[in-house]
Amino acid sequence: MTAEQSAPPQDIRVGIIGVGRMGADHVERISRRTKGARISVISDYLRETAEAVSATAPGSRVVDTPEEVIAADDVDAVLIASPGQFHREQVLACIAAGKPVLCEKPLAMNSADAFDVVRAEHEAGRASVSLGFMRRFDAGYGELKDALEAGDLGAPLLLNCKHRNASVLPGFTDTHMVYDSAVHEIDAISFFLEEPAVSVQTVMPRSSEKAPEGLHDPLLFLFRTASGTVITDELWVSTDAGYEVRTELVGSLGAATIGQETGMVTTQQTGSRWGGEVPLDFRPRFVAAYDAEVQAWIAAVADGSFVAPRSATAWDGYVAAAVCEAAEQSLTADGPVEVALQNRPA
Amino acid sequence: MTAEQSAPPQDIRVGIIGVGRMGADHVERISRRTKGARISVISDYLRETAEAVSATAPGSRVVDTPEEVIAADDVDAVLIASPGQFHREQVLACIAAGKPVLCEKPLAMNSADAFDVVRAEHEAGRASVSLGFMRRFDAGYGELKDALEAGDLGAPLLLNCKHRNASVLPGFTDTHMVYDSAVHEIDAISFFLEEPAVSVQTVMPRSSEKAPEGLHDPLLFLFRTASGTVITDELWVSTDAGYEVRTELVGSLGAATIGQETGMVTTQQTGSRWGGEVPLDFRPRFVAAYDAEVQAWIAAVADGSFVAPRSATAWDGYVAAAVCEAAEQSLTADGPVEVALQNRPA
Amino acid sequence: MTAEQSAPPQDIRVGIIGVGRMGADHVERISRRTKGARISVISDYLRETAEAVSATAPGSRVVDTPEEVIAADDVDAVLIASPGQFHREQVLACIAAGKPVLCEKPLAMNSADAFDVVRAEHEAGRASVSLGFMRRFDAGYGELKDALEAGDLGAPLLLNCKHRNASVLPGFTDTHMVYDSAVHEIDAISFFLEEPAVSVQTVMPRSSEKAPEGLHDPLLFLFRTASGTVITDELWVSTDAGYEVRTELVGSLGAATIGQETGMVTTQQTGSRWGGEVPLDFRPRFVAAYDAEVQAWIAAVADGSFVAPRSATAWDGYVAAAVCEAAEQSLTADGPVEVALQNRPA
Amino acid sequence: MTAEQSAPPQDIRVGIIGVGRMGADHVERISRRTKGARISVISDYLRETAEAVSATAPGSRVVDTPEEVIAADDVDAVLIASPGQFHREQVLACIAAGKPVLCEKPLAMNSADAFDVVRAEHEAGRASVSLGFMRRFDAGYGELKDALEAGDLGAPLLLNCKHRNASVLPGFTDTHMVYDSAVHEIDAISFFLEEPAVSVQTVMPRSSEKAPEGLHDPLLFLFRTASGTVITDELWVSTDAGYEVRTELVGSLGAATIGQETGMVTTQQTGSRWGGEVPLDFRPRFVAAYDAEVQAWIAAVADGSFVAPRSATAWDGYVAAAVCEAAEQSLTADGPVEVALQNRPA
Repeated sequence: MTAEQSAPPQDIRVGIIGVGRMGADHVERISRRTKGARISVISDYLRETAEAVSATAPGSRVVDTPEEVIAADDVDAVLIASPGQFHREQVLACIAAGKPVLCEKPLAMNSADAFDVVRAEHEAGRASVSLGFMRRFDAGYGELKDALEAGDLGAPLLLNCKHRNASVLPGFTDTHMVYDSAVHEIDAISFFLEEPAVSVQTVMPRSSEKAPEGLHDPLLFLFRTASGTVITDELWVSTDAGYEVRTELVGSLGAATIGQETGMVTTQQTGSRWGGEVPLDFRPRFVAAYDAEVQAWIAAVADGSFVAPRSATAWDGYVAAAVCEAAEQSLTADGPVEVALQNRPA
Repeated sequence: MTAEQSAPPQDIRVGIIGVGRMGADHVERISRRTKGARISVISDYLRETAEAVSATAPGSRVVDTPEEVIAADDVDAVLIASPGQFHREQVLACIAAGKPVLCEKPLAMNSADAFDVVRAEHEAGRASVSLGFMRRFDAGYGELKDALEAGDLGAPLLLNCKHRNASVLPGFTDTHMVYDSAVHEIDAISFFLEEPAVSVQTVMPRSSEKAPEGLHDPLLFLFRTASGTVITDELWVSTDAGYEVRTELVGSLGAATIGQETGMVTTQQTGSRWGGEVPLDFRPRFVAAYDAEVQAWIAAVADGSFVAPRSATAWDGYVAAAVCEAAEQSLTADGPVEVALQNRPA
Repeated sequence: MTAEQSAPPQDIRVGIIGVGRMGADHVERISRRTKGARISVISDYLRETAEAVSATAPGSRVVDTPEEVIAADDVDAVLIASPGQFHREQVLACIAAGKPVLCEKPLAMNSADAFDVVRAEHEAGRASVSLGFMRRFDAGYGELKDALEAGDLGAPLLLNCKHRNASVLPGFTDTHMVYDSAVHEIDAISFFLEEPAVSVQTVMPRSSEKAPEGLHDPLLFLFRTASGTVITDELWVSTDAGYEVRTELVGSLGAATIGQETGMVTTQQTGSRWGGEVPLDFRPRFVAAYDAEVQAWIAAVADGSFVAPRSATAWDGYVAAAVCEAAEQSLTADGPVEVALQNRPA
Repeated sequence: MTAEQSAPPQDIRVGIIGVGRMGADHVERISRRTKGARISVISDYLRETAEAVSATAPGSRVVDTPEEVIAADDVDAVLIASPGQFHREQVLACIAAGKPVLCEKPLAMNSADAFDVVRAEHEAGRASVSLGFMRRFDAGYGELKDALEAGDLGAPLLLNCKHRNASVLPGFTDTHMVYDSAVHEIDAISFFLEEPAVSVQTVMPRSSEKAPEGLHDPLLFLFRTASGTVITDELWVSTDAGYEVRTELVGSLGAATIGQETGMVTTQQTGSRWGGEVPLDFRPRFVAAYDAEVQAWIAAVADGSFVAPRSATAWDGYVAAAVCEAAEQSLTADGPVEVALQNRPA
């Protein structure tokens, strides 16, 4: 005699818009590692790219337009990895279709557009938009968040962030420094402190001789929240050394640091040095965070909550856009620039 | 117009034998995190336990016997987490059924029984047995293995292992120290050095006053391989402090250490100390290794190779059993005990 | 037959003005640890204190006034550890007497007074004034200075300083934060970067609930040098945890950190934590630096150079005073305050 | 009016026998850094060497023989840095002359000769012999000793020692490994555990291809004390990497590690690695220990106690000799060799 069998679980069918490097990574992730999901429908500006990626994701098909992805019957949830200028429109379409969406940053090209999404989601009556700030799912970020929530560190007073890249592409400017790099720490403010930056000031040290033409590198941003926590964000993107992200939270009961170097430690002949490797790009550092982010999103879609705990929301995306705008202004301003924020829909 | 869709991938249907703590963990893992697999059939000595666990795994059903699990049409692969005394018979049945199997350690209750499995698999003409030495899938173990394979450390000369537990259950004896604790480092020898221990000596320091009655704790085993690499294995299982596993490989071109303390580092008021947490049991340290082990096994089942790269095999299980037997003898021997190994089937 | 013996070396006879806590430390240091020096003459505002300290320093005598110390035939060099308001006058007297002097910080109560010392020393025609910025003799400071001089780190771009105390005395205000705490990092700027800060801005986070009345704690100062290096100085003096000083230099070819936690690392039962101790005050951290500072000064006196290599000079004391004044103004200013510096005498 | 002046302290006049590399270091140390001492008389087998070194030590003179050093009226204490075969005779002469002596290791060429010194000192009725095991004055060693004395670590159960050199001179053999390298950890046993090793076993891994002809490298010694503490001593002297000495004490209440890498930590372009330097020889690691050792000895001479707290004594030198003999035998023995120790004079 055997027990009766319940129905086996169905995979969440994910439609993906945009399968360039980031999108293709997501297809590979969802096809190989994300439990309970599969890629069902794919679109890309370049049809051939979409076809090639689809060939690596059994059970997927290619359609011509983002609209078709969103509308498809065999799409339960949408992942947007298209260029940023299309995000607003595509997310709005997902909201209109009632489908949960995970959108890579940015939510929109400016804060006004981002607020449209916040308003639309609010009017739709339910949360369905997740934004791809993957660091929220990094183990170290989680450990620090846990400590803050447990009150182990007391009230947060200062947050020191350091963000380093081995190199950037030609044409990377101060504005890219805001929207591509600092944006992560801007979201970290929302994540750790649970309040947005209300002002931002740029501090420009002299630049490294290795800084690309037109880029001030390193750069320092100083943020402040309404309750008075100060955030220093040091960005340095032409180190030639590797990728590093470190964060120290100074709280009234203690300080905590995450992102310090770990891994295997060697002592070897060459150079008579001890130490370990610095990864060349963000992947070794954050691949587990991307995996966890997408897994948490799929779990939220499966259980009907649509947005995972600790995930960045449309509101977080709007806040990031608004703070980035102020940071961009601060690049040429004399002193702090205020962040202008709409009221959050109740 | 849309592209034609290939068939979506089918999940590997896993039958599991034994759903006590370890087996239930695997059910939870495969149901929540392992991509491309689901639990289809469950058996346990206690029917109610099987029913309760099945209720958490949609699509699974309960059967009465291990034999039914192995024989079931809707079982593509078998995971054995029953008590060790049943492993040999169950693995042999899987081999006979031509189904890939991942068996928790030990492979059998003694080396002779374990060799039966090696022989049976050999006669069956294909590798299909994986043994659950999960540390092989730990990121640190992988990093050290990579460095050895790349030749970065030269020839291995010494391997120092430390293994600490906060506490053990009442009744834990020196023999358990061999078969439950040292067995992991015994397999690490095979993994890192690619040759088994050929002799073992017990070194007994005075015991901690906290050591349970009848247990020598800490204990030190000294192993040696045929090529002359020496392995020290320090075991200490009543530290009251936490779970730690550290390994240093001393090679002719350099030394490398894995398993050092990592994670968030704090400086807090209490005690005026800096530092981080030591986990209380093995889970935080090795949960990712278990996940990776099972994921790699499922991938190997799916691609028809049945045994994942770097996984422990039936032969590794036999070697571990034989070395454990020698280690057990060495507990009361005066000096080194030789390991008796059968020839490996070609 | 024996070789003829040269005359044994004579100890440098040090006269000390002020033997409160800091001065008494110096007497103990010079009497017990400083090679080639002894305390010969002592004065203090409190005669009894001077007598008590003299009793611990064989061969020393007590006089009534600072002037007598400076003038004494049995005083080769003067150490000033009196309250800061007397420093200017006492250092000027040493210059006039042609005697080398090591003066605890500050050099004078304001930058104008400090410049008087610079001018007087210049007019006297030889360097003879050392200022007690002992960190310049810390092993870590030395290691970083060496790396900068060797060019290993390229051009300095950023300097991040953190300075933490377990607690401060009642009555400690923002102004004390400048003159007692930040002054050390202000001198570190001169030491590491070989150029002074030219502007300073105060950034005030919300204060810890443990901050004494009237003190903003933590505080952040932002300095900038003429060549554009930016210095962040985070001060936090009511941590209740311990004394910490950490410095990271970000250079165009690499970053280097000194002052990280070192010493014995333990894993103990209590709390299941690994880590080490944070000292409760500055002594364990900098006692060796004080010893090295005084030893280097004595060596310089003995060889006639009067001021040790890498020691802070009268000019450094003047710069520190001027930068502190700007920092004090910045406490209530809106934005950066310029540092006003006289020209350095040729 | 001035206070009456007590007599200034007189320097301890040190006579030194042997001014090769180690002795010359001591002359430089005592002349430049050791408070309260000066070199008064020097002898060396090579007269020119003695003259050259004397020229760097003002107030010193050269004599022809060790006997003249010991007998000289202007010698208060004797430092022996001659070749080991002369130590016994020279130390005995110091005892006979009633003069305190600091003798570099070894105390004598074998344990019987060393015991002669123990007996002679005992018959002389007072302790006057210090042996130059400088690690006892290393800050890390002191920190671990403090923790043991405070009971923080409970009862010592295991002591793991690692000792690495970049390279050794040609002709360095297994016997040198015992008497030049392992001897330091042999004394560490006495120091930390306050009981000597009673047995020793050699464990020989296969040797590095870089090991000099005739040397087994690395080597492992296993020691055991009467109370049952086990000590592992890993020696590896041809690493090509640098000098490292690390020690972990496993106690019933906790484990503590000293000697881990410290100093400035850098992240630099080259190689994309983080880490720090490993010193090429023992000097950077232990120069402060030598300084502290000699300073403590001078203080003990000055206060009449003659032997500093925690210093190695004649008895410690005898124990080291006896344990080294057993270790040497163990190189070719099959299993543990017992240490034969005389009774300690009451």
